[in-house]
Amino acid sequence: MIRTPYLLFLGDAPDALAAKVAYGIRDWRPENCVGQYRLEGCGTDLGLADMSLSEARAAGAETLVIGVANRGGVISQAWKKVLVMALEEGFDLASGLHNLLRDEPDLVAVAEATGRALHDVRVPEVAYPIADGVKRRGKRVLAVGTDCSVGKMYTGLALDRAMRDKGMKATFRPTGQTGILITGDGVPLDAVVADFMAGSVEWLTPDNEDDHWDIIEGQGSLFHVSYSGVSLALIHGGQPDALILCHEPVRSHMRGLPGYSLPSLEALRDTALLLARMANPACEVVGISINTQHMSAEDAERYLQEVEARMGLPSVDPFRQGADRLADALAAL
Amino acid sequence: MIRTPYLLFLGDAPDALAAKVAYGIRDWRPENCVGQYRLEGCGTDLGLADMSLSEARAAGAETLVIGVANRGGVISQAWKKVLVMALEEGFDLASGLHNLLRDEPDLVAVAEATGRALHDVRVPEVAYPIADGVKRRGKRVLAVGTDCSVGKMYTGLALDRAMRDKGMKATFRPTGQTGILITGDGVPLDAVVADFMAGSVEWLTPDNEDDHWDIIEGQGSLFHVSYSGVSLALIHGGQPDALILCHEPVRSHMRGLPGYSLPSLEALRDTALLLARMANPACEVVGISINTQHMSAEDAERYLQEVEARMGLPSVDPFRQGADRLADALAAL
Repeated sequence: MIRTPYLLFLGDAPDALAAKVAYGIRDWRPENCVGQYRLEGCGTDLGLADMSLSEARAAGAETLVIGVANRGGVISQAWKKVLVMALEEGFDLASGLHNLLRDEPDLVAVAEATGRALHDVRVPEVAYPIADGVKRRGKRVLAVGTDCSVGKMYTGLALDRAMRDKGMKATFRPTGQTGILITGDGVPLDAVVADFMAGSVEWLTPDNEDDHWDIIEGQGSLFHVSYSGVSLALIHGGQPDALILCHEPVRSHMRGLPGYSLPSLEALRDTALLLARMANPACEVVGISINTQHMSAEDAERYLQEVEARMGLPSVDPFRQGADRLADALAAL
Repeated sequence: MIRTPYLLFLGDAPDALAAKVAYGIRDWRPENCVGQYRLEGCGTDLGLADMSLSEARAAGAETLVIGVANRGGVISQAWKKVLVMALEEGFDLASGLHNLLRDEPDLVAVAEATGRALHDVRVPEVAYPIADGVKRRGKRVLAVGTDCSVGKMYTGLALDRAMRDKGMKATFRPTGQTGILITGDGVPLDAVVADFMAGSVEWLTPDNEDDHWDIIEGQGSLFHVSYSGVSLALIHGGQPDALILCHEPVRSHMRGLPGYSLPSLEALRDTALLLARMANPACEVVGISINTQHMSAEDAERYLQEVEARMGLPSVDPFRQGADRLADALAAL
């Protein structure tokens, strides 16, 4: 559990894309953001107050979050100086970088001396159990995709916002590093040891109130041969009551797999339901989320209407339209 | 890769069950076994020559394999003495124990001083790649089960023997600790990090001659919610050309999951084929392996005939009947 609120470290990020983790936190958990910290040459701006470390601490910030990718996989001396000073000022550090904070001896030494925590969100910090398959109380919804990176996290976060806006009880449950940094908690599922994958998802989504929804962040795709095992562990560990199908219409092949074409939404629906009902016989597909970012507004509208008619399910692009109709579908379940 | 042949360490195993790894090696790779090493109080006998460490070294043994489970998860002082002496005599050590050889400082120190290897087969020793899904040359067969522990490893090893006896080109590819100790090589799939599961199976079953069969050891079950992700990674990483369905008829529920009943062979066939054809559209189910150990000979025979008629596929118990008919089915594919 990462302590909030955050000071967002942008470093020398050349543009918004390099700082997409920071943008994600700002967009989805603005209440977690006290300000931003930029170095000379930073080419992007979150629109938050620029603060020194001591100003941010005075304003209540508990953790400095590295919201930017580093070039070449090395933590530069310019970054290191800020990170060490932040520990000395009383910040914890949180990072999703491939190279780990815990592998930097100077950061480890200063963190130990100051009693501060180093959170590498790519690495599990919990000894997860083996899944026991026992039915839990409360409700769960999972986004499943025709492919990787089709908008499952975005769909989950948009749904979380829409459900809270409607006064529904909902908790977004991250299973990837960006989601974990956004909410401060979760399971880095791609780094969990095989035998404990489903158990980690059970752990992430425990018993809850009968009218509470866990919104489980999806990963991979049942149809993506590199990561399908992770997707199935989410389905069987999560015991979802509801599935949302996610798709990006313009792709010519599966991400990173040139020889593999994407499945139809019908194939995804049938395959995911078949497998999900092994763990929860009541599971239903309740809606469809389409990522239309590479389509014109008219094409997107036409495509959504066609899918909605064909599949008989509410079909939205949550980025263009919000996730209200998906939230309504869950409320009606 | 563990160096063969082996001296099999039985320690103070009270009975054959406690030494089942040693029995597996003796049964399936007798050519790898130089002799056995037993301590005072050992209650079982592999029927191999009892040898001292130096006798076994003189007879060519390269590795001392711990073929017995230890009680309480502690490597006793009586065992330790033998293990240290074995390193000094020039043996490598290999173990599938939960507590690792590498976590014992004295063993590590002696192994370093003598230049010997400590193989903990529960722990991956390779940095596996992410699966790329590219079709490999050669053929592959995978055993899939209605449940865990229904005889998938036994089926694979029996098939390996039957295929070699027929002069077919075949390699058993272990994915669990017992199989790895039996053959000296393999992937401990349940301990692989999620993102690399399918890639480790691709790594295990590389390009080969067109008429060569990799016999991939199955794990878990698509229907077992604790481990299904591992099973799917095997199917998508292995790209099997052929599946063999494995089943034990007498179970009242899935292993360790009291609320879950076993699927039918038809459900297993349809689900496994659906998923396998995503990676290899030509995949076929070629036969059925039934574990009839808890049935009388007459009941077993009747059951096998019934399954064969119902499913239209050769159905055998490889323990009672060998795997000849399964090998023939592969040869005919």
